[in-house]
Order: sequence, then C-alpha cells, then structure tokens
Amino acid sequence: MSNFRKIFPLLDWAPTYSKSDVVSDLVAAIIVTIMLVPQSLAYAMLAGLPPYVGLYASILPLVAYTFFGTSRTLAVGPVAVVSLMTAAAVSQVALQGSPEYLTAAITLSFISGLLLIVMSFLRLGFLANFLSHPVISGFITASGVLIATSQLKHILGIKAEGDTLPHMLQQVYLQLNQFNIYTLIVGGAALVFLFWVRKNLKPLLLKFGTAPRPADLIAKAGPVVAIVLSIGAVVLFDLQSKGLKIVGSIPAGLPPFALPSFDAQLWLQLLGPAVLISLVGFVESVSVAQTLASKRRQRIDANQELIGLGTANLAAAISGGYPVTGGFARSVVNFDAGAETPMAGAFTAVGILLTTLLLTPLFKYLPQAVLAATIIVAVLSLVDLPSIKRTFVYSKSDFSAMAVTIVLVLLVGVETGIVAGVGLSMLLFLWRASRPHIAIVGQVPGTEHFRNINRHSVITHPALLSLRVDESLYFANARYLEDRIYDCVASHPKLENVVLVCSAINIIDASALESLEAIAHRLSAAGVGFHLSEVKGPVMDGLKRSDFFDHFKGQIFLSQFEAAHVLTGATT
Amino acid sequence: MSNFRKIFPLLDWAPTYSKSDVVSDLVAAIIVTIMLVPQSLAYAMLAGLPPYVGLYASILPLVAYTFFGTSRTLAVGPVAVVSLMTAAAVSQVALQGSPEYLTAAITLSFISGLLLIVMSFLRLGFLANFLSHPVISGFITASGVLIATSQLKHILGIKAEGDTLPHMLQQVYLQLNQFNIYTLIVGGAALVFLFWVRKNLKPLLLKFGTAPRPADLIAKAGPVVAIVLSIGAVVLFDLQSKGLKIVGSIPAGLPPFALPSFDAQLWLQLLGPAVLISLVGFVESVSVAQTLASKRRQRIDANQELIGLGTANLAAAISGGYPVTGGFARSVVNFDAGAETPMAGAFTAVGILLTTLLLTPLFKYLPQAVLAATIIVAVLSLVDLPSIKRTFVYSKSDFSAMAVTIVLVLLVGVETGIVAGVGLSMLLFLWRASRPHIAIVGQVPGTEHFRNINRHSVITHPALLSLRVDESLYFANARYLEDRIYDCVASHPKLENVVLVCSAINIIDASALESLEAIAHRLSAAGVGFHLSEVKGPVMDGLKRSDFFDHFKGQIFLSQFEAAHVLTGATT
Repeated sequence: MSNFRKIFPLLDWAPTYSKSDVVSDLVAAIIVTIMLVPQSLAYAMLAGLPPYVGLYASILPLVAYTFFGTSRTLAVGPVAVVSLMTAAAVSQVALQGSPEYLTAAITLSFISGLLLIVMSFLRLGFLANFLSHPVISGFITASGVLIATSQLKHILGIKAEGDTLPHMLQQVYLQLNQFNIYTLIVGGAALVFLFWVRKNLKPLLLKFGTAPRPADLIAKAGPVVAIVLSIGAVVLFDLQSKGLKIVGSIPAGLPPFALPSFDAQLWLQLLGPAVLISLVGFVESVSVAQTLASKRRQRIDANQELIGLGTANLAAAISGGYPVTGGFARSVVNFDAGAETPMAGAFTAVGILLTTLLLTPLFKYLPQAVLAATIIVAVLSLVDLPSIKRTFVYSKSDFSAMAVTIVLVLLVGVETGIVAGVGLSMLLFLWRASRPHIAIVGQVPGTEHFRNINRHSVITHPALLSLRVDESLYFANARYLEDRIYDCVASHPKLENVVLVCSAINIIDASALESLEAIAHRLSAAGVGFHLSEVKGPVMDGLKRSDFFDHFKGQIFLSQFEAAHVLTGATT
Repeated sequence: MSNFRKIFPLLDWAPTYSKSDVVSDLVAAIIVTIMLVPQSLAYAMLAGLPPYVGLYASILPLVAYTFFGTSRTLAVGPVAVVSLMTAAAVSQVALQGSPEYLTAAITLSFISGLLLIVMSFLRLGFLANFLSHPVISGFITASGVLIATSQLKHILGIKAEGDTLPHMLQQVYLQLNQFNIYTLIVGGAALVFLFWVRKNLKPLLLKFGTAPRPADLIAKAGPVVAIVLSIGAVVLFDLQSKGLKIVGSIPAGLPPFALPSFDAQLWLQLLGPAVLISLVGFVESVSVAQTLASKRRQRIDANQELIGLGTANLAAAISGGYPVTGGFARSVVNFDAGAETPMAGAFTAVGILLTTLLLTPLFKYLPQAVLAATIIVAVLSLVDLPSIKRTFVYSKSDFSAMAVTIVLVLLVGVETGIVAGVGLSMLLFLWRASRPHIAIVGQVPGTEHFRNINRHSVITHPALLSLRVDESLYFANARYLEDRIYDCVASHPKLENVVLVCSAINIIDASALESLEAIAHRLSAAGVGFHLSEVKGPVMDGLKRSDFFDHFKGQIFLSQFEAAHVLTGATT
C-alpha cells in the first residue's frame, strides 16, 4: 500500500464503490441518524452544553472520519463517557452556561484532535495499551453510575449539583421535596417506556413474526418515539408553563464556523484532560472498530485511526462542536443496518445536517427530562458488574487497579480515578518486571537437560551454581539479579563458580551490562569464577561491541551441559 | 533470621564484637574523621548552608546508621550530589542565608527520612531500579560539572550566581575582572596542591618505600593539610582583611536540637525534591554498600538499608543537619582503613563531635576558597566521560536517555534532568515491553521441533498459523498481540486454524485474558479456529479459575507437534 493510500484510506474502497453499496450505506445512514439525533442532544446536555451542540458535533466530524478513518463501519460523534470527561474538564475553567464554557469545550476538542495527530506522527499509539482492560472497564462502569446519578435531577425537576457520587446523592436527598410533579411524570414515563423498549420490545416483535434484525433496529429507535410523544405532550398540555424544563430555542441553520481559543493559560489547563480524553476515546473507538472489522476480516490501522479521530475532533472544533469519538452502540447499529463503507458516515452527516436545518423548531419543546431518561437507559448498559467479579476471581492485582479506579471515580472524580488506576497498574507492572523468575538449575540425571532444582530432582554440585533468568536483562531487573547472585554467593560458602544460563535473554541493556561487569568484578574479588552459557547470537554481538570482554575473565559456554562438564570436571 | 534481628542488624555483629574489632574500627574512624571534617564543611557550603551544618549532619546520622544499617563499612554523611540537589530544592522556597533556608533544609531531610522509611514498609525499594545506570551516570557526571563550575566564584572571590551552566559561565565571565588576588592565590594554590596530592603523592610515597595502603590513606588526607596550611596563612598575613572570605565564627558546643517545619505548604513544595533525593541517595548508597560487602562476602538487605538511611536522615533533621546518604569516597577509605563493623561509624561520629566541640575556633579562619578547591577536586572525579562513550557505542536507546539527562541537568536543572531521563528510559522500556517478539513458527523437517520461519527452513501449512510469543501476556502487549493476529488472519485468506504457542508465557493478566477471549470470539466469527499449545501449569490453573473455558471453543494441545498433527491431519 502506498503512503498516499495509507493517509487516505478512502482510496481503498472509493474506486470500487458500487450502486448496491450506495443503497446499503443509505439505509444504514437513515437508521443511524434516527438513533444519533436524540443521543447527540442528550450527550451535549451531559457535557453541560446546549443540546444543539451535540448535533453540530455529529456533522463535520463524521465527514472527516470518512476521509481519514480506516474502519468501514465505525460511527463517530458525541459519546457518554467522553461527554462526562468534557464536563469535568471544562467546568474547571469556565462557568456552565457562559460563552467561555462553549469556547473551552471547543478548545478541548481542538487540543484533543492535535494530540491524536501528534501521537500518530510520533507513533505513540502504544501509549493507549497502558490503559489496561480492568482500569478501562472499572472506569466505564463507575462513569455509568456517575452519569446516571447526575441525570436524576432532570427527572425530578430539581437543581441538585455536585461532581462526586456522595455529593450528588446528598443534594438529591436534600431537595427531594422540591420535585416538580409534571417533570417527574414525563421523565418517569420516558424512563419506564425506554426500559420496556430495551427489555421487552424486541422479544415482542419477534413473537409477532418480525425478523430478528429489523426487530433489533426498531427496538433501538425507542428514544425517537419517546421524543416525539413527549414533544406532543408538551405542546398539547402547555407543560413548560408548569415548570417542565424544555430544550428551548435552537439556532436554525448550518453549524457556525467556530475557532478555538488560543489562550496559552487555557491550553495549559486543558492539556491534562485532553490527554486523558484522547487516550480514553482512542481506546474505546479502536476496540469497537476492531470488533466490527474482524467480523468481516477487514483491517484497522491503529496509527491511521489516530489521524481519523484527530481530524474528526479538529472538525468538531471548527464547527462549534465538542470532543467526539467512535461510539459502541451506534457503530453496532451501523454495522447491523448493513453499512458497507465509511460513506454511510458521510450520509449520516447529511441526515443530521438536514435535521439541524429543518427539524430544530420541533426540538424546542423537547423536555430535558426525556433526554435525561435517554441518557440513564443508555449508560446503565455501561455498568458491567460481571466483569468486576471476573477480575476479582482471576487476579487480585488486576482487581486492585480496577477497584482503585472505581472508588476514586465515584468519590473524587473521573480524572483522578483514571490517572490513579493507570498509575497503580503501571506500578504493579513495573514491580513485576523488576523481579523476573530466576531459577537455580541442575542436571536432569541421564540427560543433557538442566531444570529448576525446586521442580525437578536434579544433580547439583556444591562448588557450582547455575542460574537461569527467564527474562531479558535491563535496568528494571539488573540490580535484582545482582542481589540474587550476591545472596546466593553469601549463602554458598563452598562456591567456586557461578554460571548464568542466558537461554531466555533477548536483550542486555547498558544498565544490565554494568551489572554483569559489577557481578564479574565482585565475584572475582571474592574468589569465585563467573561464566555465561547459551548466550544468543545478537546478545553476543552486543557484548563484543562493548568492552565487556576486556575485563571478563570467565568463560562462555555454548551449552549449560558443557559448562557443568568443564567447571566440575564431571564425566556424566 | 528473626524479625527483631532484621530490624536491628546490630544484633548480628554486636554479640561477637571483639577487642581486635575495636582497634580496627577505631583506626578507621580516626582516618575517616580526618577526611570527613573538610568534606562536611565544604558540602554544606555547596548546599548553600553555613559550613558547620555539615559537621552536625555527620554526627547523629552516623549513630542512627550504626543501629539500623546493614552495611558494615558504609560511611554516611553529606555528599556532593545530594548537597547540590538540596541547594536546588531549598533555594526554590527560601532565600539563601535566611533562617528559613536552614529550616527548609532540615525539613527536606525529615521528609526524605520519612519517605525512605515508608518505602521500606511498602517494599518500594524496587523503585530505585528505575533509575537506570545510564541516567544515574549521566546525572552524576553533569552534576559534577555543575558543582565544579559553581565553585569557581569562590576561587576567584567574585559574586557570580546562577543555577545552570550557561548562566554560571556568563556570570563568571562578566565579573572576571573583579577577582580578588588574595583569594585567587590561596584558592589556586589549594587547587594545584590538591590535584598534585591526588595525582602524584601516592606514587611518590610508594617510591620512597611506603606500603601501598598507608600511601593511599596519606594521599587522601591532602585536604586536611591544605586546610591547616591555609588557616595558618590567613592568621599570619591577616588575609581576611584583604578580601579573602573565611568561614567565620562557628557556634561552639553540641549540635542544637532542631525541629523541622510542619507547614503543609512547605511540605508540598519539598515533596517532589525529597522523592528524588531519597531515590538518588538510596541508589548511590546501596551500590557503594554492595560493592564493599561483596568483597568480604557480606550481605546488604536493600529494604533494611531504606530504614538505615531513613533514620539517618531523621537524625540529621533533629540535630540541625541536612540530607545525608552513604558516600563513595569515604566508604572506600573506611573499608581500606580496616573498619570491621558499623561501630567505626559511631566512633567517627564521636570524632566529629569532638572536632565540633573543641576545634571549631580554628575553622573560623578557614578560607572558603580552600573548601571550594576541595569540592572541585572531589567532584571532578565524578565526571565519567568513558562511561558516556561506552554507552554510546553499546546502545543508542540507553545513550539517548543519558544524553537527555546530561543536557537538561546542565541547561535546565538537576531535578528536570533526572526526571526527564527517568521518564524517557521508562518510556523506552514500556515501548519495548509493549511489542514483544512474536514469531510465526513451522516444523523443522524430521523433528518435533517448531522454529521461527524467518530463521530456519521449516514446514508450514497454508491453513494453519502457529504463533509463538516470547513474553508473558499482560496489558502492555495484549492489544499488540491482537493486532498481530488480526493482521495475520487478514493476510492469510486460506487460514482455517490459529495456534498460539504458549511455551514462553508465564503470566496472563486480566487484560490479556480479555484479549484472548476477543481473539477467540473474532476468529470464530470469521470462521477460523483458535487453539493453544504448550500452556504452562500455573497459567492453565488461572484460565481454569476464570470462565475462559465456558466460551472457548478451541483445543488445548500439550505440544505444538500434537497441535500441527491434529489440525492439519499431517502424518509427519
């Protein structure tokens, strides 16, 4: 594949784009549009922004991803977790509802876009690998709980504020008596209806003979029904004059051309959150894209995905939107509805654009409580308790990172939670890497094999110590190896020779080289010989390039058998 | 060894402490005291503190280490690099010369002591392993250059300030014409004399028939001679009235009982530097202690060393001192002078105490220029250019971390330098860990062995792909493995089965488990079978504990040979 093709994955499918592809993509686009409109409005509200900003974030970003993304079926746009993170970040620097708040959200999107593109050029996509599954999973579960709780106030029609779970619950509890009955009826009805649609509509449709796929898609259009019905109810009963909060006037017309702020102070404040949003969004997006691509044996280029998501975020920033990424639910809908190429995304963008141009007057009367109900039903599916249990059973170390993430997200905040979780899992990783498995080996009787003395009955010799390190040697474990060897020497008074079996060593870095020299030097000072066996070719080349052999007085043996034979004078 | 004995390593040697040990320790203590007095005065000056603070830091800390340290011969006290780091940290929060400056230095010592003890309890000593050799070596070399340059002003008798190399050099250059001739003569003479002693005195003594060991020790007493001669010269020629700066009055008597500040703001400001000082001091100290211990086949317990150094720093904090650690030069002198037990340290403390009580009036006339010369001669031995060259030749990746450390220490500051160096080396480490060696293997003809298809001529089958991962599977490389497998599947259209050869996998963490499940799920969706071979016992136990086998449809083969045999129906 040429470089040009790599940068424009579009060139892979555009030349063979057929009429049947157009039809498939159009159908998928219509279905995704219907699903995306209420979601976009709702998630923008979750991010603390006017709902229509969610529509803006669902037009140009989709077009950008069509050009630069490698997934054929990923649907980008506002998603729940990133919206929550946006709210957390932006409310640190601006007051919700102020023009500065929107500017900060736009700027956050711009910085995230730039970061993703820079990460692509520096090939830093691997950084996302350090958000381990348990941390991501714990983070998403805790975010789901936090988001659902944050929407309670909209269902109740009260003014509870707060960033953390205890604070939110306390506020809801204190103001519970001030609830608005109309809001509660509309919001509660929407909640019950949406849960019913999610749980029972599909089985019902199947029972009445609908094919499984359309049944699934109809069930996913539930929010649209709720929206239409609730708008009707508001207009009919003039509910907004009775204290029910509605979305209100939406500026008609095209998304405005916007520019992020270039205030250095603001950039500095948003940089940390932008890094987290970029990484979390990237991980979420790529894992969705990969799941779908592998079903059709297609390929995702993670590095090019950084470009795709980066340009999507830049596109969001210049069209009055906020940070976007690939969403799970809508991508699956897109895939199931038969999308064949990223053109489905471009068609969806047209669908949202038409909605923005023509249908916004309708949304004026949409109750915020219904959007809140949409959010609650959507995010509760993020809460994954079985995964917590599985992790607990499988690995206490992984579970501790997960638990720290969950507890801190709920009690302190999303950013603290994910940073602490990643930090802890890296610390545990480094700790593990710093103490590799080191076995004292002896000869299996009657063979030339050497095995761990703790697992096999083997022949050893009091004057010879053979150590096998099951890991490459680098700075993280070099001193551990030194310690282990000095301990062994101190506890084996009859020792005359130490052999390091290097069969599992692929790299010896400069720190480990110094350690090997120190070991050789110190053992020699203590009158003990130090030798190597089974050194791999590339490692040997490296040692020869250094001045290691200028000082090394020991021998290098091709096999451990030879080493034992020569050093003990044994004849077995 | 009982826990009680572990906490008080003293109990290991005290019961058998003999008369001959007393004599050896006393002799060593006298020699170390003579060496330590000028060093303590000089390093305190380097830290921006009154010189006598260095004496205070060389009394109680030595006693604390005697009780809690595990090295028999380590000599703790003020050292050059830690003094420089103290100056860098404390001058951020207080004005040099003010009482707040001393309080901050004492507080820094207290925090470092606490951190070291906490690290011991949390078994975090392994963190020091992440200061790789190239980073530490580059850091010490650059610090040596920085320290030597910072002392030029004392030799010239000018007032040049500055924290970075370019700034210092510029200041010296601008004020060069204001030098004080008497200072320059005394400082220059001390410098020439000390260099001569270091280079030529020992060979000369050997030539005149002195035994090598006393010759070495006499050569190391050079600074004392310089101090005595220069004090004589100041008194005789009244040089301080001619602009030569002297140490000035030193409060006579015992070190004062001091308390660190408990101001939360100050602690927060000093926490970062204290972490760095603790780690750097610990690494320096432990590597010295290990070098010496292994010469006599003794043991160092790194975790107990944290306690030893921690209590030494707490002791420094309550007796008006500043951060201390085990020094290289003085420990070697202690060892060579025949110290047998840590009692030598306690005797040295008595020696310094007597000096403080009785000899301080003499030090009043000690020229600062002579102390500066002592520092310059001592630290230039820290500059290790061959090590830079060796690292460059051996490994470009290690060299880049070293170069970044050196350049940033010189141009920005000690803290930035070491943090960036450690950060870069960890990033390179993580990058390496995130992409393990993965080989496609095939059967070596006529054997049951499977080897890398790129290195050996082996038999493969178009419908079977066998992959061997030479690394445990965890979050850092789980997604990389997924990518590689999906790539392989996408590029092998005839593929029917994939086998993961697990012979080198010691751990599968929760992230990797999810990845394995995702791989199995996706390959199954694409109509490809996924199997494992040569799974180790403990790994298999873990998989069985999870619900992996509830969904896994593939087979587990004891050997790769069996896998290939069954899956291809081959008869070879």
